[in-house]
Amino acid sequence: MRIALDAMGGDRAPVGIVDGAYDAAREAAGRVEVVLVGKRDTIERYAAEQRLSAPNVEIVDAPEVIEMSESPATAIRRKRNSSISIAMNLHREGSVAAVVSAGNTGAVAASSLISLGRLPGIERPAIAIFMPTKNGGTVLLDGGANSDCDSRNLLQFAFMGSVYAETFFGKAKPRIGLLSIGEERSMGNELTRGAYELIERSGLNFIGNVEGRDVFAGKVDVVVTDGFVGNIVLKFTESIIYYITNLISDEVGKHAFARIGAALMKPVFRGIKRKLDYAEYGGAPLLGVNGVVIISHGKSSSRAIKNAILAAERFVAGGVNDTIREKAGGLKA
Amino acid sequence: MRIALDAMGGDRAPVGIVDGAYDAAREAAGRVEVVLVGKRDTIERYAAEQRLSAPNVEIVDAPEVIEMSESPATAIRRKRNSSISIAMNLHREGSVAAVVSAGNTGAVAASSLISLGRLPGIERPAIAIFMPTKNGGTVLLDGGANSDCDSRNLLQFAFMGSVYAETFFGKAKPRIGLLSIGEERSMGNELTRGAYELIERSGLNFIGNVEGRDVFAGKVDVVVTDGFVGNIVLKFTESIIYYITNLISDEVGKHAFARIGAALMKPVFRGIKRKLDYAEYGGAPLLGVNGVVIISHGKSSSRAIKNAILAAERFVAGGVNDTIREKAGGLKA
Repeated sequence: MRIALDAMGGDRAPVGIVDGAYDAAREAAGRVEVVLVGKRDTIERYAAEQRLSAPNVEIVDAPEVIEMSESPATAIRRKRNSSISIAMNLHREGSVAAVVSAGNTGAVAASSLISLGRLPGIERPAIAIFMPTKNGGTVLLDGGANSDCDSRNLLQFAFMGSVYAETFFGKAKPRIGLLSIGEERSMGNELTRGAYELIERSGLNFIGNVEGRDVFAGKVDVVVTDGFVGNIVLKFTESIIYYITNLISDEVGKHAFARIGAALMKPVFRGIKRKLDYAEYGGAPLLGVNGVVIISHGKSSSRAIKNAILAAERFVAGGVNDTIREKAGGLKA
Repeated sequence: MRIALDAMGGDRAPVGIVDGAYDAAREAAGRVEVVLVGKRDTIERYAAEQRLSAPNVEIVDAPEVIEMSESPATAIRRKRNSSISIAMNLHREGSVAAVVSAGNTGAVAASSLISLGRLPGIERPAIAIFMPTKNGGTVLLDGGANSDCDSRNLLQFAFMGSVYAETFFGKAKPRIGLLSIGEERSMGNELTRGAYELIERSGLNFIGNVEGRDVFAGKVDVVVTDGFVGNIVLKFTESIIYYITNLISDEVGKHAFARIGAALMKPVFRGIKRKLDYAEYGGAPLLGVNGVVIISHGKSSSRAIKNAILAAERFVAGGVNDTIREKAGGLKA
């Protein structure tokens, strides 16, 4: 299987990105070929410096780069030869089975829509992000592709999340929760009250409204919300973890015995870091586009990129899009 | 100064609530009289059992109780003799200077509006919640009083938050941030883009859009958002802290040396708990009502209640409502 990787996407690209490509190519040798899309000179120079080499890595030149700070819509229109656009074109032509990018999320989403289009029955694609919880994890969507949604969009997110979670967790009838502020159906805002009605009669395994504590307690496999709230929640979660870690080191510095304690607790902190680290999970699929697009964190390490490529391979093998195509017609809205 | 406390509000009321009342009365003897509003029998029996007594505590009987799970609007209409309604009436009549409640938030907000009305120029009251950050803290509003807002509401939240933060942090021109998903003014949803325009030309010290990392890094003194997003973010923050604490104890149990390490780190964990503990901060004012209403967490401990009563005393002394009354006319929207 050939998988395209946007070599220029990510805060420190190509550092980390190209390394991850070679790591994945080695780990999945015989199964995956990685197609690095980006400035050929930059990639080749970096690979030579780092002495990276693998027979199943190919480079496709893309002379333009969309920066993280650019306006997605404008950038996609103006830079037809960006690494993102060229990777998407390879996918549309069937030359690769999936695209992985840690670049400008908005540009990746816009480019996916333009190049690949949507799956039938889906009006808006959504980013499905894995969040670690007490006894495993949950998939939250939309993680930030759509900042203004209507209740039909949320119904479609619930449906796509359910299909994805079925493959991802290997679990029949995943439990769906609607992110809101209170358990009763009347709680929430106009959007969630409307979505509650629709999801309730959709035939999905809907358990009702959920709040933060339900999510972390592992009450649901899928958390449905609009991309504005989803993105805010994800960024808060990430920041709080960083904030608490910093608080701990600051406080440790103030107490002599605590420094010894912290040294003894190293395996604990390592275990927790591993559990909370996005790099372990690699990337998040953009569900609802007619193709396989995995979006990675802008701060992706080489390990995160490697895991994203392996996640793309699993996604293609899991047949999520076929199931969405097949069942979307049955969605009553 | 007389301050009414809803003795029946809170998940475990009157346990903790009545204790907090007596603690505050002792600590603020000579300055504050606490008026406990609730079922007289229940309060007297509990105070006798716990041997609580103070000359500056008074009991006012309220035969009805609004449960945490009741629909706010209905409960307020039906239960005219609830502890919340009677406390609000005491405030409207001028018999107390403030009301503190850890009860049903929606019912407290609805009852405040009915009994006290709004301050001129304010269409919707908002709950202003203190969040600890790297170098102090920030005030987030709305914490959950309004789940559907328009951009004018957010402008008014920004204004009230600014006035409150000025007194609360003793700081001129508090920095105001709008919670959104990206720095640029074009990022966010329809609501935040509209609010951005309004707050920008309001004359407030507006620094633009903020995300989780900006909040915890202490970039702003006030975070403005609608009550749906605000409430979700607060509950996520609380849950993650609880989740991480649990993760740490689970992991510690698995490693022998880590148990010793954890023992040595006790002062660190205590310091962090103190910093993150809502009980330290006590309560959140409902800004924009024509009166002083402090809403406490449903899980309030006696310390949280004591601190909420002391916060009410400071709020009255700070003259926040007078400043809002005076300056609201100048708000251009």
